[in-house]
Amino acid sequence: MAKKELRVGLIGTQFMGKAHSNAWSQVGHFFNTPVKAVKAAACGRNAERAKDFADTWGWQSVETDWRKLIARPDIDLIDICTPNNNHAEIAIAALEAGKHVACEKPMCMNMDEAKRMVAAAHAAKNQLTTVWYNYRRVPALTLARQLVQEGRIGKVFHVRAVYLQSWIIDPNFPAIWRLNADVAGSGSHGDLNAHIIDAARYITGEEITDVSAHMETFVKERPTGNMVGGLSASTNQSGGKVEMAKVTVDDAVIMLAKLAGGGIGTFEATRFAQGNKNGSKIEINGEKGAIKFEFEDMNWLEFYDASVKGREQGWVKISATTGDHPYAGAYWPAGHIIGYEHTFINQASDILTAIGDGNFKKMQPDFDDAAKTQAVLNAATESSKSRTWKSTGC
Amino acid sequence: MAKKELRVGLIGTQFMGKAHSNAWSQVGHFFNTPVKAVKAAACGRNAERAKDFADTWGWQSVETDWRKLIARPDIDLIDICTPNNNHAEIAIAALEAGKHVACEKPMCMNMDEAKRMVAAAHAAKNQLTTVWYNYRRVPALTLARQLVQEGRIGKVFHVRAVYLQSWIIDPNFPAIWRLNADVAGSGSHGDLNAHIIDAARYITGEEITDVSAHMETFVKERPTGNMVGGLSASTNQSGGKVEMAKVTVDDAVIMLAKLAGGGIGTFEATRFAQGNKNGSKIEINGEKGAIKFEFEDMNWLEFYDASVKGREQGWVKISATTGDHPYAGAYWPAGHIIGYEHTFINQASDILTAIGDGNFKKMQPDFDDAAKTQAVLNAATESSKSRTWKSTGC
Amino acid sequence: MAKKELRVGLIGTQFMGKAHSNAWSQVGHFFNTPVKAVKAAACGRNAERAKDFADTWGWQSVETDWRKLIARPDIDLIDICTPNNNHAEIAIAALEAGKHVACEKPMCMNMDEAKRMVAAAHAAKNQLTTVWYNYRRVPALTLARQLVQEGRIGKVFHVRAVYLQSWIIDPNFPAIWRLNADVAGSGSHGDLNAHIIDAARYITGEEITDVSAHMETFVKERPTGNMVGGLSASTNQSGGKVEMAKVTVDDAVIMLAKLAGGGIGTFEATRFAQGNKNGSKIEINGEKGAIKFEFEDMNWLEFYDASVKGREQGWVKISATTGDHPYAGAYWPAGHIIGYEHTFINQASDILTAIGDGNFKKMQPDFDDAAKTQAVLNAATESSKSRTWKSTGC
Amino acid sequence: MAKKELRVGLIGTQFMGKAHSNAWSQVGHFFNTPVKAVKAAACGRNAERAKDFADTWGWQSVETDWRKLIARPDIDLIDICTPNNNHAEIAIAALEAGKHVACEKPMCMNMDEAKRMVAAAHAAKNQLTTVWYNYRRVPALTLARQLVQEGRIGKVFHVRAVYLQSWIIDPNFPAIWRLNADVAGSGSHGDLNAHIIDAARYITGEEITDVSAHMETFVKERPTGNMVGGLSASTNQSGGKVEMAKVTVDDAVIMLAKLAGGGIGTFEATRFAQGNKNGSKIEINGEKGAIKFEFEDMNWLEFYDASVKGREQGWVKISATTGDHPYAGAYWPAGHIIGYEHTFINQASDILTAIGDGNFKKMQPDFDDAAKTQAVLNAATESSKSRTWKSTGC
Repeated sequence: MAKKELRVGLIGTQFMGKAHSNAWSQVGHFFNTPVKAVKAAACGRNAERAKDFADTWGWQSVETDWRKLIARPDIDLIDICTPNNNHAEIAIAALEAGKHVACEKPMCMNMDEAKRMVAAAHAAKNQLTTVWYNYRRVPALTLARQLVQEGRIGKVFHVRAVYLQSWIIDPNFPAIWRLNADVAGSGSHGDLNAHIIDAARYITGEEITDVSAHMETFVKERPTGNMVGGLSASTNQSGGKVEMAKVTVDDAVIMLAKLAGGGIGTFEATRFAQGNKNGSKIEINGEKGAIKFEFEDMNWLEFYDASVKGREQGWVKISATTGDHPYAGAYWPAGHIIGYEHTFINQASDILTAIGDGNFKKMQPDFDDAAKTQAVLNAATESSKSRTWKSTGC
Repeated sequence: MAKKELRVGLIGTQFMGKAHSNAWSQVGHFFNTPVKAVKAAACGRNAERAKDFADTWGWQSVETDWRKLIARPDIDLIDICTPNNNHAEIAIAALEAGKHVACEKPMCMNMDEAKRMVAAAHAAKNQLTTVWYNYRRVPALTLARQLVQEGRIGKVFHVRAVYLQSWIIDPNFPAIWRLNADVAGSGSHGDLNAHIIDAARYITGEEITDVSAHMETFVKERPTGNMVGGLSASTNQSGGKVEMAKVTVDDAVIMLAKLAGGGIGTFEATRFAQGNKNGSKIEINGEKGAIKFEFEDMNWLEFYDASVKGREQGWVKISATTGDHPYAGAYWPAGHIIGYEHTFINQASDILTAIGDGNFKKMQPDFDDAAKTQAVLNAATESSKSRTWKSTGC
Repeated sequence: MAKKELRVGLIGTQFMGKAHSNAWSQVGHFFNTPVKAVKAAACGRNAERAKDFADTWGWQSVETDWRKLIARPDIDLIDICTPNNNHAEIAIAALEAGKHVACEKPMCMNMDEAKRMVAAAHAAKNQLTTVWYNYRRVPALTLARQLVQEGRIGKVFHVRAVYLQSWIIDPNFPAIWRLNADVAGSGSHGDLNAHIIDAARYITGEEITDVSAHMETFVKERPTGNMVGGLSASTNQSGGKVEMAKVTVDDAVIMLAKLAGGGIGTFEATRFAQGNKNGSKIEINGEKGAIKFEFEDMNWLEFYDASVKGREQGWVKISATTGDHPYAGAYWPAGHIIGYEHTFINQASDILTAIGDGNFKKMQPDFDDAAKTQAVLNAATESSKSRTWKSTGC
Repeated sequence: MAKKELRVGLIGTQFMGKAHSNAWSQVGHFFNTPVKAVKAAACGRNAERAKDFADTWGWQSVETDWRKLIARPDIDLIDICTPNNNHAEIAIAALEAGKHVACEKPMCMNMDEAKRMVAAAHAAKNQLTTVWYNYRRVPALTLARQLVQEGRIGKVFHVRAVYLQSWIIDPNFPAIWRLNADVAGSGSHGDLNAHIIDAARYITGEEITDVSAHMETFVKERPTGNMVGGLSASTNQSGGKVEMAKVTVDDAVIMLAKLAGGGIGTFEATRFAQGNKNGSKIEINGEKGAIKFEFEDMNWLEFYDASVKGREQGWVKISATTGDHPYAGAYWPAGHIIGYEHTFINQASDILTAIGDGNFKKMQPDFDDAAKTQAVLNAATESSKSRTWKSTGC
């Protein structure tokens, strides 16, 4: 008997469009889910590029207007991979059109949008919502959460999370959309800090209640790529005038935090950490144990079990690649590692399972959950302006 | 204009069948090759299992007799993923039928087979042969070879390679085909030592001329999984008689080697190295520098450049994940790692490119090249029996 | 001709007394300094323990009253290893008595004391002052500073420093003097944060101008070790009343910082980081490079040079154990590591050299310098109370 | 009551003379042994250098003829730090003179010497013999042995040991005594392979029964440092004739081994492993667990416990620096590392304890034990010549 199908409509054909297309292509190769994903339609504003993209990845049809995609009755789930300033509008429209919604992170631009998205999710009937905080589906991080949930870490004293990149240190790197607050909302904050805030919440199972943050923009303006000046201009090597644009987002953010359970944390997200390409790292220290993780070595989890006798205590480096580990059994034999893209495949598998089971709450983070990460981001932004601690309301 | 197609016929639907199916599925998503792979037919002896396999991976048709597959005029390339005792027969038949042939490693069972395969390859016209020594397509290892070729290591003094696994330490692990010499040819030797011998040859560009080896079988007989005894039997916990079979392959092999350029090497391959899941590691020390690699951390290459001033000399840990590194630019941004399966995708891309370009020698290792790895394996086996050094003839 | 001697009078015979005794014993074995250290007198309040200590370490005489020690005309340098609440009083008295002064860190209890110590140092004539921020004498950290000073890191964007210990997580760990604010001044703040603040200042050569900090005491009261209750009491397993004392210092401190040059930093010091014994770690990211260091692997410095071509960029792991590295040539051949105690030997060597050369300013940190670390500690304490950012005045 | 004294006479004032002088100086600072070491006399052929050496290290007297030293009735123990060709003669003479003997490794030049040394030791009465295989006193390695002895590793399948250095790669490095077979006996073999053979025997508690080895000299002749030619000569940059001498020892040795218990091993010792300063590394894999150690990170032991449930299995990285670990409690708090020199202090402590207790067999390795390492070295040398496996006779 043929499996039930979930017909996916994807919006956005850049980096995340590629990662999601791969996930929807691969999930059926490795996971036996109750529902089967069908790559029904890809939507991009440029028709030719959208067509090429669809051809490469095997999307059955192409749209150039996301409203038309949402209006199509043959689409079951809208997968949002657009820049951040469109998330809320598309998600709410899709929910109102009766679609399941899977939205890239960060969820949205601000708390007002978050609240409206949550309201739309609550108003929906039998619809799944989720935000692609894909790091939750790294086998090693899922294992970390399991260890915490089973009491192996005990009361949490410390969270220490950083997300270190270095790709815009060069002051001649251009003023792309990710550096424009109107489109991106924020810089490293929404892009990177969002990931580690979500990871900390996910692993500990605790909310962040208060923050003190500082956001910094090291390079205040950058070339637009055009030659004759706009708001400002500088002279380039060939003597021409290079148009410069203000950078309106943060290059880096540092943040102190208090957790609901009495623990404390430090967070740092930056695109100026020379030496780090994709350095998402987290360590959590509790009364009974500790865990440590680095995304660039994502197949490994380090675990410290303080209940072991002193002579043999130490960090255990676990290769989370065996049948004993979350998701890993679906892929290759022990020690044959997986990579970045598999986190999306794992999330796609969970989406298909939750929809197949009709158990939508099983799919986390949903909009309710992701809105709490948004609240922390929001409080941090306020704190950076006021130079005081702020409550997140969580 | 539509791309030219390469219609692939795959034989074997186990572990390697899965890895190759993934490669043929994914290569077009990431690489823009001159020829496009089509998953034309999958062949397995069990019709139902073959059908399921083909459905999961999108193979267009199914065969249960490899001779029929080879006879099909619509098939351009035969991809051999069967146990080792079939490689030679299938490869030679496929070459005689005018097909391109991509064969899993080890190439074959013995030097006689190797010579016949090479002869068939030489007799073929405009046909590509290759053996899936996929580790050559790890970006970090390809980079290692480039560094050697550019003279950054200088004269090679030492090769130090191990391939450490641990999955059959339990004496109750059953006597599967991989432990039967008639089917597998050898144990850790052909399965693992073959990989690191090939890697050493590939990176250094040198042949191994002489070896002294010792092959060991720690567990001499194992349960077959049946209950009433065969050649031998032991009593299990519930009092029944467990049928036992002799283990006719090596559990481990250790080997000393001399290289054509005057360097020396040590090799070790084992399935009894507790603590190691898939520990394929190699270090090469030369006059001017050194390289170090571990497969379980396959996105990293360590490089030592002795031309740097003393104060700053050290091992550089290179994340071979950027556009500057072989293959890596096809995938994700810097620091977003890839895994085991991508080595096969990379090799599939190279196969498609070599065929598209009509430049079959560009595809390495071909049967000529792989036969030299086979010669080293063969000399090691002889050395283990004679307790003396043996020449490889290379 | 016999070398000139520096007759040392040591006050305090606990942990630091041992580390300093070792330094004064060993410095002449490895360094050829212009002045030779003589272990003239050790001073401890308990006569018998002081005598035993002096016998073990070869101190020529014993005192039980530090004022008497300072009054002795045969003593040239007073080395202060007492609890923090005595530092200022002893140091000022010693300076007034014309002695050189080497004082354990943290320098003192508060800014008032720091200012009086600085004033006394300024009033002194031809006297050396120093604070034992011994981490400055780790060869790898000294090398880090040299690299920064030579412009290899460029403009500093980020400092990321932690000092993680775990020895008082057990709530039954007793209320020792280090947990009493009257004696210790602070907890992890003065003990650990002081080290990493000093290290950050030392390596970058920049002052910390503003901080936002949070100090936390996870365990509010602890057993005194006595049985019948004091201010509070709890019932132990055998039914008796265990006397409890309030913990009046911080267990942990987290801190955001702004640097004079425009960079930002995070600092964390804690005795509750399960899994970390002595985890003093620092990473500094600049425009042109980065450095990374961990005290438990103190023989290694990691250095990232962004001027290297992309293909070969990576963290270089430097074994700072060769004749090319600061201090290291005095000890053993390359790769034969040194340990914690050698940092004190190195500082003793520098003290003897500065005094021999009559160049007292060469000895850093002197009281002027160490007072700036004290100012950062002070601002952090105020910030934690006010929940706002504070200027350090530096 | 004053402690009994052990009056030490040291012969040899180079590298090992320094390491041993440090050990005798420091042992009383950290260990409370039943007997106290006294640095009675240092002996070196050059009177002035010996005097300087004795002054630096606090030796009470100086000798220039080792026979005179041995004849002195006030000397209790002879500590031999001379080149290898003197070990046997001095040790036997010292034993015959009634002295305890502590001899640097390797024990001697060949099996004939070893047998005569053992015979002298057996003929002695109430005298201790030991060879300074100091790596046995690395806390982490002592812990490794304890784990094996307690059955935590189980039956040993594999030993994998390397000792990698790189200090003579430059062909212009001169022909020092260590490269002269008449003085040194062998090159990397006796210097480095001896250490790892001893370590393997010590940790596993098993003898090595058979070996196949290859010894290689990459650079066949080197400059003597003199200008007008001897046996051979080459022209240097300034046109003069550089005297060259044959290198008569091995630059590197590689070796396969069989262990008494059925396990197998690989060994490699070299001075040509670019990138490695002092890379003494060993891994041992058993049925129930495994251990891994690297000397340049000597404060850490990695331990794999296969009895842990699959989800949490991994290498535990143990900081062997706490009171729970051998020797470590004598030094500094947990995580405050020690270094190379402390292995000698630990051995000195064990010597003083064994002598104080009158339990000479407690001190291992004694000459009986060290002769077995010598037998392995000897068999390897023979194997390298015959190109066949050789029995060690152990």
